[in-house]
Amino acid sequence: MDLIARLREVVGADSVKVGDDVPRRNWQDEAGLPPVAPVALLVPRTVEELAAALAICHAVGQPVVTQGGLTGLAGGARPAEGEVALSTEKLVGVEEIDPSAGTLTALAGTPLEVIQKAAEAAGFMCGIDLGARGSCTIGGNVATNAGGNQVMRYGMTRRNVLGLEVVLADGQIVRSLNKMMKNNAGYDWTQLFIGSEGTLGVVTRVVLALHPLPRGILSALLAVNDTESGIRALRRLEQTIPAGLLTFEAMWHEFYEIATGTFRVIAPLERGRELYILVADAVVAQSSRERAGLWALRESVYDYKREFGPTVGFDISIPLDRMADAIAAYRVAIPAAFPGALWVAFGHLADSNIHLQVVPRPWTPETAKAVDRLVYSEATRLGGSVSAEHGIGTLKRPYLALTRTPPELALMATVKQALDPKAILNRGRVL
Amino acid sequence: MDLIARLREVVGADSVKVGDDVPRRNWQDEAGLPPVAPVALLVPRTVEELAAALAICHAVGQPVVTQGGLTGLAGGARPAEGEVALSTEKLVGVEEIDPSAGTLTALAGTPLEVIQKAAEAAGFMCGIDLGARGSCTIGGNVATNAGGNQVMRYGMTRRNVLGLEVVLADGQIVRSLNKMMKNNAGYDWTQLFIGSEGTLGVVTRVVLALHPLPRGILSALLAVNDTESGIRALRRLEQTIPAGLLTFEAMWHEFYEIATGTFRVIAPLERGRELYILVADAVVAQSSRERAGLWALRESVYDYKREFGPTVGFDISIPLDRMADAIAAYRVAIPAAFPGALWVAFGHLADSNIHLQVVPRPWTPETAKAVDRLVYSEATRLGGSVSAEHGIGTLKRPYLALTRTPPELALMATVKQALDPKAILNRGRVL
Repeated sequence: MDLIARLREVVGADSVKVGDDVPRRNWQDEAGLPPVAPVALLVPRTVEELAAALAICHAVGQPVVTQGGLTGLAGGARPAEGEVALSTEKLVGVEEIDPSAGTLTALAGTPLEVIQKAAEAAGFMCGIDLGARGSCTIGGNVATNAGGNQVMRYGMTRRNVLGLEVVLADGQIVRSLNKMMKNNAGYDWTQLFIGSEGTLGVVTRVVLALHPLPRGILSALLAVNDTESGIRALRRLEQTIPAGLLTFEAMWHEFYEIATGTFRVIAPLERGRELYILVADAVVAQSSRERAGLWALRESVYDYKREFGPTVGFDISIPLDRMADAIAAYRVAIPAAFPGALWVAFGHLADSNIHLQVVPRPWTPETAKAVDRLVYSEATRLGGSVSAEHGIGTLKRPYLALTRTPPELALMATVKQALDPKAILNRGRVL
Repeated sequence: MDLIARLREVVGADSVKVGDDVPRRNWQDEAGLPPVAPVALLVPRTVEELAAALAICHAVGQPVVTQGGLTGLAGGARPAEGEVALSTEKLVGVEEIDPSAGTLTALAGTPLEVIQKAAEAAGFMCGIDLGARGSCTIGGNVATNAGGNQVMRYGMTRRNVLGLEVVLADGQIVRSLNKMMKNNAGYDWTQLFIGSEGTLGVVTRVVLALHPLPRGILSALLAVNDTESGIRALRRLEQTIPAGLLTFEAMWHEFYEIATGTFRVIAPLERGRELYILVADAVVAQSSRERAGLWALRESVYDYKREFGPTVGFDISIPLDRMADAIAAYRVAIPAAFPGALWVAFGHLADSNIHLQVVPRPWTPETAKAVDRLVYSEATRLGGSVSAEHGIGTLKRPYLALTRTPPELALMATVKQALDPKAILNRGRVL
């Protein structure tokens, strides 16, 4: 019996799609790579079905790519040639909110926004928030250790996870739906799967720690004359606001000028300063219209593609004490290497994460790769990382060794080999 | 050449102690198990020496037990027969405080209190605090994922760790002295070693994220009539104090009566209520004398051994919505099974962690084991864990399977096998 027939036996004929029945959306993620049709698309209705399907793939060495909301920016969820795509789209639902423990348990395919709303309805706040909230899934958030807008206060996804259910490469289900903040009984194996981008197992259920619901959100815009002053403002605000800031979003002047010039966002503060910072605290209520006005600045970046054509985007970390050096270096090196290029820097800053958007003129695959090399080599020269929150996927694999030492890469390979010896899970991603 | 001679070659003769040169303190930890002399005590002066010594032990399959401050309560650091003890006591020092990143880098053998003071001198706070601060080491805190007094606000040790240097079983040094809050470049392999109690590698350097230094600490004592009201008070306080409480320490009435009766601690509130809660917030200054008065209640537990002789102590987690059931069940079952036994419950509560102290009369190794079985089976029946913060070590190994499923234990064994195939590191601990 062939693979498709065997898969249909365990998950049902209508849950195994092939050929034209595979929707085009499952051919790619948001990384902008050329679409590739998977050999088949599996949409199991239960965790047990998913496990049975994975056991079959494992037995025959069939490579599998896991797909959540397909919003990833690193190419991790796009099928490679010959892969079966495994979608969690039918594993949907908030299964429990425990108000006493302050936890929420959901199936992996549940969209983040559904979880946020369920938490709020129960009087809690979900600590994870990102732009893709409407389509990204909690399983994908966990698999990629997603960052987003509230990392300052609530940490990355890792910090919000108390328990997991995972299906291993061979179809074994491992479950620890722990709801307790403290549980030092043996290895916390769940940590292995958070942020490993689906290469060690498939996340199927998640227990999140929820947070008290803030009564409102106050936003403000600051302008300072240099990056160091921005970091000093951060430290001062942390002292004054013991709860921790909700957000601290930096926009260097090139970014602010495009937002308030090209995109005509009203400039709440005069142009010509080095750095503008959107600060949000989560205590005092404020008109949401006023808040939206400030955020329009930051969100102008979503219009770049339409206005400027293809860009080269970056999600890098830079140690805070080298941040000013990094901005200064990029400001000189990018225009020198790519005359006429547009470039801007912005991002969360406080958590060491900035984003760059570069538009080389002309944009070609070759100039884009050259921009990659320049930005990543500079980031790693300053002790930074080639991925702060978007992950490695396939796109950044060539650059992982810039950020990680050979013993680190060897250790990662040891873990991969132990958990997925046939390398059927998300092959070619990360490692 | 024999093992001792080879070890002396790489770490120097005076760093390999044998026979009477091994101090008695290295024969045991704080778990109260009978002392055992190690085959030799290694006290390397550098990480490179430590790595070279471990490579030699690995080559010949010599089992090694790692020792930090020897303050563990689970028997993990006591040598087993035939083991070499590897002490981090000479790997001491705060190597860097980076005020811009808000991080501190230290060698593993540095006592926690030294780290706390260095952080405070630089205007920051260390998020980790526990009673053993004067003698426990940061390496031990990381290896055991220590909890302690400030978990509500700053989390367990895991949340405070940004980077690690670890020596693997075969002597390979793996280093990621990351100082950035966000770094999703490949697997975060450091998570594997946090809380694995030295069974996967030896922690040699730690990068901690520091916190803003609070201006003062306010303590208060609450009394409520049932456990549920205590949990409601917790949720209300969390809403009111957005920074999160520094501590929330519960003391059930048996505990309060012994503190204010037997130990004559002044009763700030009348006796006869179900639950007393010490709450501390970290914003408003208050006289430290007043604060010390309240804490004398909680600290009365340190006098139990002197007053009552040997006790059976527990560090368990109970889901918050089962907490009242757990207290009610113990209150009935312990006196029923052990007539005349003294028992008290207290602990952090808010983080699902409580401690019990039970004094069976008479105390014998057999009655102590019977108390173990009763307490652990009740905790796991209610969905709790046999270790909230103290770890598994050797003492709780018989009970790990009560808390973890066979697939979980199999996964832990897979990881152990991959990282320490000869099982030379802390053999017989945890798994």
